[in-house]
Amino acid sequence: MRLGIVSKVLALIGAVVSLSMIWPLLWAVADGTEESGAFVLSMIAGLTLSGGLFLLGRKNPAKELGPREAFAVVTFSWIVASVVGGLPFWFARSVPTFTDAFFEAMSGFSTTGASVLTDIEANPRGILFWRGLTHWLGGMGIIVLSLAVLPFLGVGGMQLYRAEVPGPIQEKLTPRVQQTALLLWGVYLLFSFLETVALLLGGLSLFEALTHTFATMATGGFSTLNGSVGQYDSPYVDGVITVFMFLAGANFVLHYRLIRGHLKAWWRDAEFRFYSGLTVLATMTVAAFLLCRGIYASLGEALRFAGFQVVSIMTTTGFVTADYERWPAYAQGVLFFLMFVGGCGGSTGGGMKNIRVMIVLRQVRLEFHRLLHPQAVIPLRVGGSVVGRDIVNAVSAFVVTYVGLFVLFSLVMAGLGLDVVTALSSVAATLGNIGPGLGAVGPTDNYAFLPPAAKWVLSFCMLLGRLELFTVLLLLVPETWRR
Amino acid sequence: MRLGIVSKVLALIGAVVSLSMIWPLLWAVADGTEESGAFVLSMIAGLTLSGGLFLLGRKNPAKELGPREAFAVVTFSWIVASVVGGLPFWFARSVPTFTDAFFEAMSGFSTTGASVLTDIEANPRGILFWRGLTHWLGGMGIIVLSLAVLPFLGVGGMQLYRAEVPGPIQEKLTPRVQQTALLLWGVYLLFSFLETVALLLGGLSLFEALTHTFATMATGGFSTLNGSVGQYDSPYVDGVITVFMFLAGANFVLHYRLIRGHLKAWWRDAEFRFYSGLTVLATMTVAAFLLCRGIYASLGEALRFAGFQVVSIMTTTGFVTADYERWPAYAQGVLFFLMFVGGCGGSTGGGMKNIRVMIVLRQVRLEFHRLLHPQAVIPLRVGGSVVGRDIVNAVSAFVVTYVGLFVLFSLVMAGLGLDVVTALSSVAATLGNIGPGLGAVGPTDNYAFLPPAAKWVLSFCMLLGRLELFTVLLLLVPETWRR
Repeated sequence: MRLGIVSKVLALIGAVVSLSMIWPLLWAVADGTEESGAFVLSMIAGLTLSGGLFLLGRKNPAKELGPREAFAVVTFSWIVASVVGGLPFWFARSVPTFTDAFFEAMSGFSTTGASVLTDIEANPRGILFWRGLTHWLGGMGIIVLSLAVLPFLGVGGMQLYRAEVPGPIQEKLTPRVQQTALLLWGVYLLFSFLETVALLLGGLSLFEALTHTFATMATGGFSTLNGSVGQYDSPYVDGVITVFMFLAGANFVLHYRLIRGHLKAWWRDAEFRFYSGLTVLATMTVAAFLLCRGIYASLGEALRFAGFQVVSIMTTTGFVTADYERWPAYAQGVLFFLMFVGGCGGSTGGGMKNIRVMIVLRQVRLEFHRLLHPQAVIPLRVGGSVVGRDIVNAVSAFVVTYVGLFVLFSLVMAGLGLDVVTALSSVAATLGNIGPGLGAVGPTDNYAFLPPAAKWVLSFCMLLGRLELFTVLLLLVPETWRR
Repeated sequence: MRLGIVSKVLALIGAVVSLSMIWPLLWAVADGTEESGAFVLSMIAGLTLSGGLFLLGRKNPAKELGPREAFAVVTFSWIVASVVGGLPFWFARSVPTFTDAFFEAMSGFSTTGASVLTDIEANPRGILFWRGLTHWLGGMGIIVLSLAVLPFLGVGGMQLYRAEVPGPIQEKLTPRVQQTALLLWGVYLLFSFLETVALLLGGLSLFEALTHTFATMATGGFSTLNGSVGQYDSPYVDGVITVFMFLAGANFVLHYRLIRGHLKAWWRDAEFRFYSGLTVLATMTVAAFLLCRGIYASLGEALRFAGFQVVSIMTTTGFVTADYERWPAYAQGVLFFLMFVGGCGGSTGGGMKNIRVMIVLRQVRLEFHRLLHPQAVIPLRVGGSVVGRDIVNAVSAFVVTYVGLFVLFSLVMAGLGLDVVTALSSVAATLGNIGPGLGAVGPTDNYAFLPPAAKWVLSFCMLLGRLELFTVLLLLVPETWRR
């Protein structure tokens, strides 16, 4: 492991996060509220840390970024961002401890949206703006990571997306990352702009439109209201956010192609068809159950709330417009299941990703074929193209690891004293980067009451889920650190 | 599909089940209780059905049993046995409906042990003996199936056990089945005899010793007491049953080898080591938690109850000596997780099986290797020998299908109105052929209160789990039925 280059990249991340605090600082100064000092202090602390990392990096001048260094850079980027990004919450006394500050910032940068704030509206606008901005910056990081970095590292079948990136194929990582990043950030910015305008037209203030756009496009879920999006009680706002959550949960390369004039880009993509189909199917069955049980009076209302919640959970955003814990167990079960499916590859959504679910389902179908025709050798296909064995194996390993970590950390949470439903759903909601779960961490609750150890465990789950598990797990293997 | 041969085999199964009713009939006659008539009536009905099936089979004389026919024979054998075997419960009015009778018999033959009897001790001895005998017969069926039939059909990686069967390798199914069956049934009989003697020495009556032996060796779990094995409140009985449950959950080929003088047969087997290690690890951590929380006063007591319950759940027996729903959530979580692991291949235990868990864990480990050394091609090994890609793929597909069916049927159960914990655990407990779950189907409850639809769903889960999923699922694929 060449730590010099790692250190330098982390210095850059720390500096970017520190300098991004200028925006919330502007809100704080404009409002004349007290938290301005907290931001200035955080920026100084963050830039000092960055400077230290940079100097450390200069001592070990190595320019090449190999796979091992890449895993370390990615993982520690999110940790450094959360340490620096959590400082304002702590300094402004929005949260009582550094543990809470780190949890909230990790929840932001990992686009999870699980919060330890008990009364969100009691916080000044600067703090809430920063909270939203951590989502948006995390979302930018994820798009680049999932489309331009991880495919090259071969993590969990993300190689599938290698060919999807526009431009000539090259061996070196850096030029591609820069090129891809700029194109896809353009799409991300454009969609963010469109959603902000749409929310302004719905009567939201610029502050509210921006913060909710940040949380939507990053599939994060931090709202500035205690009652989340449901507090607006507006079908228009629900509709706008549902549409943009859905877009944010789809592959950004497809959006880029669509904008470039390939009008069939969405429908030609097998994963997008699966993602849309599952969304529609889940919405319809949940709405049907809500109607039958008389939770909502009209089909329109049932579809509005079921659609919002299904899209919110499946894209792993975690916005809430209804207390779904009062819904029938079946509807809760569907939402819990969707937590595992998550968004598409190349989106800002979390979870296992639709493409992986598709590949394991195809593998099961192939097994039926094999049992009936033991001699036949049939390759696994998705959307007409053959998926290599290496990728299928990587995807299987990913799915097994995901379920295994879910079980392991649920046991840890139960060991820390949580009841079964809360233990299971808190892990599912953080590993999948969703936010709200069921039980004591349900849609009307928050994560503040958890013991510190549980907060660290769940912070680790957010990191694991966000970085496709293996990126983080590899750093726990001694072999990775050998020279 | 050549239905002639299928029909003939099913006629044989029906006749065997009907004629087995002689034993409970003898108990009933000896006790002079009323249910004698029910058994005579059931035997007549069963033999009539068998006769009909035999005549049907004679019309289509085809002697060859291909893979498709084998899948049909296996699946329908368990269904025919449960239809015929359920009749005595219905005729003797131990259960109110045919649905309940079928559920109880399927629970018996699938060695699950989930019961719809609300007051077990209120039933005459003939009925309870029959209930135990369904377990024991089901266990005999499973040993042959998992070691001599399914490996040849290539179901879910069971091919691993193909080489394990003693004797020369032949292409034809039948001679091997007969040879293997006789050898392994010998072991099964011997162990059953030893346990019966051990339980008699512990002060149990012949009736109780036999019925509890049936339930142990088949990893079934039907007790003749309302309070299950816990009612004896005897460390000796607990110990004997723990040991024999553990043996019944291990591969019977290893037991055969041990008896033939290969003293290291157990420890040379990687699956047996994994199975033993997991049992010890789970017992120790659960016992430690029980001690810390003050549920038991001494280490000895904690180990006794933790060990019994861990072995009972992991081997998928389902006997109960403690109301584990009063244990801390962590202990319940461990038991719930063990429900999925289950016994070893070639045992009477259910669940996913230790070997499959081992293979998927190895696959994950290989993935770590692959990410660090992208060029290296390393085969998957278990216990020193290479596991072929086909088997690894089959195992992956099995595990995914198992988890998928668990999710699907949990949603169905939630849709039928059950709470989340009961929905999840009833499906886990029947798909894994365990018996008791958590929530409303916990260790002190039974399945009687469920709506009929739920009973049919869970009966199907028992069948699916017992026959390694694909054996049953293949019959739902239209392609299987094409000529």
